[in-house]
Amino acid sequence: MNNIAKTALLAFLLGLSGLASAGHHEGLMHEGTQVKHIGYSQMGDPAAVLEVKTEAPLALSPGEVRVKVLASPINPSDLLQIAGNYGVDPVLPARPGSEGIGRVTEISEGVQALKVGQLVLLASGNTWAEELVAPAAGFLPLPDLGPVGADVIEQLAMAAVNPLTALLMLTTYTDVAEGQWIAQSAANSAVGGYVIQLAKQRGIKTVNIVRREGLAEELMAKGADVVLIDGPNLAADIAKATNNEPIVLALDPVGGDTFARLYDSLGYGGTLVTFGVLSGRPATLNTGMLIGNDTRLRGFWLYKWYQTASMQEKQAAFGQVIPLIVNGTLKADIDSRYTIDEIKQAVTRSKQGGRNGKVLIVPSPL
Amino acid sequence: MNNIAKTALLAFLLGLSGLASAGHHEGLMHEGTQVKHIGYSQMGDPAAVLEVKTEAPLALSPGEVRVKVLASPINPSDLLQIAGNYGVDPVLPARPGSEGIGRVTEISEGVQALKVGQLVLLASGNTWAEELVAPAAGFLPLPDLGPVGADVIEQLAMAAVNPLTALLMLTTYTDVAEGQWIAQSAANSAVGGYVIQLAKQRGIKTVNIVRREGLAEELMAKGADVVLIDGPNLAADIAKATNNEPIVLALDPVGGDTFARLYDSLGYGGTLVTFGVLSGRPATLNTGMLIGNDTRLRGFWLYKWYQTASMQEKQAAFGQVIPLIVNGTLKADIDSRYTIDEIKQAVTRSKQGGRNGKVLIVPSPL
Repeated sequence: MNNIAKTALLAFLLGLSGLASAGHHEGLMHEGTQVKHIGYSQMGDPAAVLEVKTEAPLALSPGEVRVKVLASPINPSDLLQIAGNYGVDPVLPARPGSEGIGRVTEISEGVQALKVGQLVLLASGNTWAEELVAPAAGFLPLPDLGPVGADVIEQLAMAAVNPLTALLMLTTYTDVAEGQWIAQSAANSAVGGYVIQLAKQRGIKTVNIVRREGLAEELMAKGADVVLIDGPNLAADIAKATNNEPIVLALDPVGGDTFARLYDSLGYGGTLVTFGVLSGRPATLNTGMLIGNDTRLRGFWLYKWYQTASMQEKQAAFGQVIPLIVNGTLKADIDSRYTIDEIKQAVTRSKQGGRNGKVLIVPSPL
Repeated sequence: MNNIAKTALLAFLLGLSGLASAGHHEGLMHEGTQVKHIGYSQMGDPAAVLEVKTEAPLALSPGEVRVKVLASPINPSDLLQIAGNYGVDPVLPARPGSEGIGRVTEISEGVQALKVGQLVLLASGNTWAEELVAPAAGFLPLPDLGPVGADVIEQLAMAAVNPLTALLMLTTYTDVAEGQWIAQSAANSAVGGYVIQLAKQRGIKTVNIVRREGLAEELMAKGADVVLIDGPNLAADIAKATNNEPIVLALDPVGGDTFARLYDSLGYGGTLVTFGVLSGRPATLNTGMLIGNDTRLRGFWLYKWYQTASMQEKQAAFGQVIPLIVNGTLKADIDSRYTIDEIKQAVTRSKQGGRNGKVLIVPSPL
């Protein structure tokens, strides 16, 4: 649930909605080859319904810009949307992809906020494509970063969803001081990795809960202080691992028993923030702990944050995340990269269990 | 759990602790008759272990005052403490009673905050007695109320626990605007009655949930907008009763299924505050609603509030409650009144199901 409606996230960030990037520019032909994008005209298994489409380069209308797509991740919610399991169905035919990074290659008359050569985050959806044509406001200009390598470009492609989720959950609900402990389940997820890194950077200690052996070394390398396997004794295991120091914040996308165990693990006045129900299970709680332990329960939904946060709050959040991505503090594992033509392999890979990170669409070598 | 440690509540209010009112003044005899108080030297069934004790009036040490007890309620937590089911056991021999009202009858040298004839709230515990002798700081002076009748005296005797609980739950966790809806379970409790009255005074509408028929008329007379019987369809019944207006705040001392139903009844961004687990049951929740509905869960514990609120916050809370009690806006039903000599009948009555309100200890006619 946490990643719903990412297509519109950056559009919300910019105070826009309903940006469409293609289909309404006809006539004027550009020099050069045809450009490719991914499309689908029916909902279903992404590997079955996604198609590589080709069209002539679109001419710019006044106020529009042309952006070469450098990289765009495949997020779980993208696949849910394509399959029609997303809550809000796409209008068909549709173009998938919700976030990414690109470089401005052409601007139309009247565009002042962007210039040719500038790096931008993609804010208008339809990001699994070689290029996008859309109003300038559909792109978030990045500050001048100086020379940036392909690795940073790829990391910035994933900036708008998971790093912001991690940052906002860590900072919105309670003040976590240096030296204090937090806990999180699904710690080997992309969000989990960002939480570890952000906590480490702030001197916050993390208990990281996973469902299988063999992940501790990798998570410790990212900055994890403790890695535990989920199970019935989780609360006691956490208390032992922290030497009974209180857990002031716990983050959970799993729900069910895991949620209940994190609830039981919180110190006095601690907050449990849920951002998913991967288990599909309800949680059974001793509500007396809300009273006697002053436990606090909240949920986080990035979609709503984009809808309700002020422009200042949004700028502050991006302003914290982007420099940390650029300097390498915040980094997600990348499993593999695919071109537009390889879309079926890409979505198939992105649904496989043994992956080691995100799958990226990289239309041409960076 | 909500009423725990009331013995010390007003002591906390005044920034004190461990005030003792008796037992250390020997020697100097006063004119007049013996004075009576309730004591117990073993924990157990209150009707069995409570005894009427008699002693000579205590002489005042410097800084102490003598206060004639006018009225003191029997709260459920008093009975739990006497029975040894309270979490923290009393030091035996002990004197029961946690709140009440009295009038200053004598002050010692050096006392400036109180004067003879002044009405005070009893802040040093041991309130089931004909009189108390304690340091002046153990009493909360009431503002000059002009002439007050016996009914107001009795209502003020109950000011420090239930009305404050109702006020703080209604005002601490979320801003409830005029015309908005709240819901509460156990609406026919003393706290429930205060919630109805405070909400009515603020133009807030209340859905009041009870467990049996026959209470609607009484609650409507107090200002209730809707009275419903708890059951599996509660969330739907509430939606129907409010014409689908959102519930912005729900208050629950029951727990279990009732807690879960109130959770399911909340509007977007609504808060559920628990202040007891009368059912003794855990609650099973779809935690996805914390995300998608931005539901917020909290607990209220008056004991902790007294420990942590600033003096300014405490004065503000009493400053809101006391005038409303004096002018009759806030009022609890009183079932019956007993003298010190009738203590066994009093505690027996206070545990009976068919009561119609609080049982008061009133040492002599008001």
